[in-house]
Amino acid sequence: MHRFFIPPDALDGHQVTLTKGIAYQIKRVLRLEAGEYITALDNSGWEYSVKLERVDDDLVEGLVEAKAYSLTEPKSFLTLYQGILKANKFEWLLQKGTELGISRFVPLSCQRSVPKIDAEWPTAKYPRWQKIISEAAEQCRRGRLPTLEIPLPFFQGCDTAHGLSLILWEDERETSLKMALQDWQKGKKMEGGRISLFVGPEGGFTQEEVEYAFSKGILPVSLGRRILRAESAGLIASAAILYELGDLGDVS
Amino acid sequence: MHRFFIPPDALDGHQVTLTKGIAYQIKRVLRLEAGEYITALDNSGWEYSVKLERVDDDLVEGLVEAKAYSLTEPKSFLTLYQGILKANKFEWLLQKGTELGISRFVPLSCQRSVPKIDAEWPTAKYPRWQKIISEAAEQCRRGRLPTLEIPLPFFQGCDTAHGLSLILWEDERETSLKMALQDWQKGKKMEGGRISLFVGPEGGFTQEEVEYAFSKGILPVSLGRRILRAESAGLIASAAILYELGDLGDVS
Repeated sequence: MHRFFIPPDALDGHQVTLTKGIAYQIKRVLRLEAGEYITALDNSGWEYSVKLERVDDDLVEGLVEAKAYSLTEPKSFLTLYQGILKANKFEWLLQKGTELGISRFVPLSCQRSVPKIDAEWPTAKYPRWQKIISEAAEQCRRGRLPTLEIPLPFFQGCDTAHGLSLILWEDERETSLKMALQDWQKGKKMEGGRISLFVGPEGGFTQEEVEYAFSKGILPVSLGRRILRAESAGLIASAAILYELGDLGDVS
Repeated sequence: MHRFFIPPDALDGHQVTLTKGIAYQIKRVLRLEAGEYITALDNSGWEYSVKLERVDDDLVEGLVEAKAYSLTEPKSFLTLYQGILKANKFEWLLQKGTELGISRFVPLSCQRSVPKIDAEWPTAKYPRWQKIISEAAEQCRRGRLPTLEIPLPFFQGCDTAHGLSLILWEDERETSLKMALQDWQKGKKMEGGRISLFVGPEGGFTQEEVEYAFSKGILPVSLGRRILRAESAGLIASAAILYELGDLGDVS
């Protein structure tokens, strides 16, 4: 069934009212008709089975006939603090990271970041990026939309890290990502948990950045000897984390 | 230092002779000069430190001054049997999969594959694809080039599976990728090993394909409840496998 993340005010009791882009999508692109069903998601984790009652170009109305709690959200809450990349690479990472199960993206402006961040940046980029996230979340059947935060300077980003906090560092020789994750899990009684992962921009982190992160309790970890591109490192380390924590391949 | 995979006949004793594209790259693109060094890789796993003696547009000569065995190759030998994807997605997967540490790619023509494979296909696509693999391998510092096989029909591909053989199947409800990997490792005395991973095309595998694979001893496994795009599934499952087997994050 087609899935749509709907705006917060679109659901009122059992009544669903959709306008603009979603109405157009339902009527013109998918050519659905009254009597057919969609799955509506209000970003609460609930999935609503909605029978369409009226389908016009600019207005779609329907009634909720059933609801169920989404089973697709990861138990872990992974925040990816990612050094800002060139736009097409960052978009790719948002799409793949949403499919994978990342819960929150924080773009970081780092000392070696190439794209310049100014006050216009979120206004110019975010509508498109939110759309990429939303479409990826619908396609892979997530129950919630990952959050895309406004960009932070690296040092400020470090101050907001929470849970198990890790920074990928290509010169790290002592601690692998796996060692850090397995040590952390030993002390835990429950599955899931909060993880903050810091990944550098195309040129990597500077020594000063890594030292600051370390002073804030963020542990440098290695992903091994092959040197991954910045966007590959963010996705692959996130995949390893969700895999280790039981959020890739739960079959129950 | 700049790294180049060199042709088999480019190394003769200590003498290195480079022509064509690599010579052009060294002279014109990187503007290296006699007296500078490159790292040459002959795809044997050895890395040669080469001092340039002569640098012309169409001929570069140098002498091997030292050699060392590459430490970047994974201990596991992972073959990704990937249902053929649209060209840009397949290229993306070759690049990222090479960085990640996949050792062998086998494109599969499946019942739901969209691109049509004819006799011209490898001739038309492979020079570009080999270049993508080679550049990714140089950039991430691999010691060997992953192999790109000619495309096989799905059923024939199944007959060539070896080692731990797994097929990603979205309807699998009993066995997760993690369970399969951990069961396999319990019986092993050494790290590494051979793994064959089958991943479907955009439309997924058919029931008939999965049943045939199963009859050949290829185990259906789940990557969880989020439905990944075909190219994401190939990369993310490969990342999970190499992570589990100790090939992502080895720091010794």
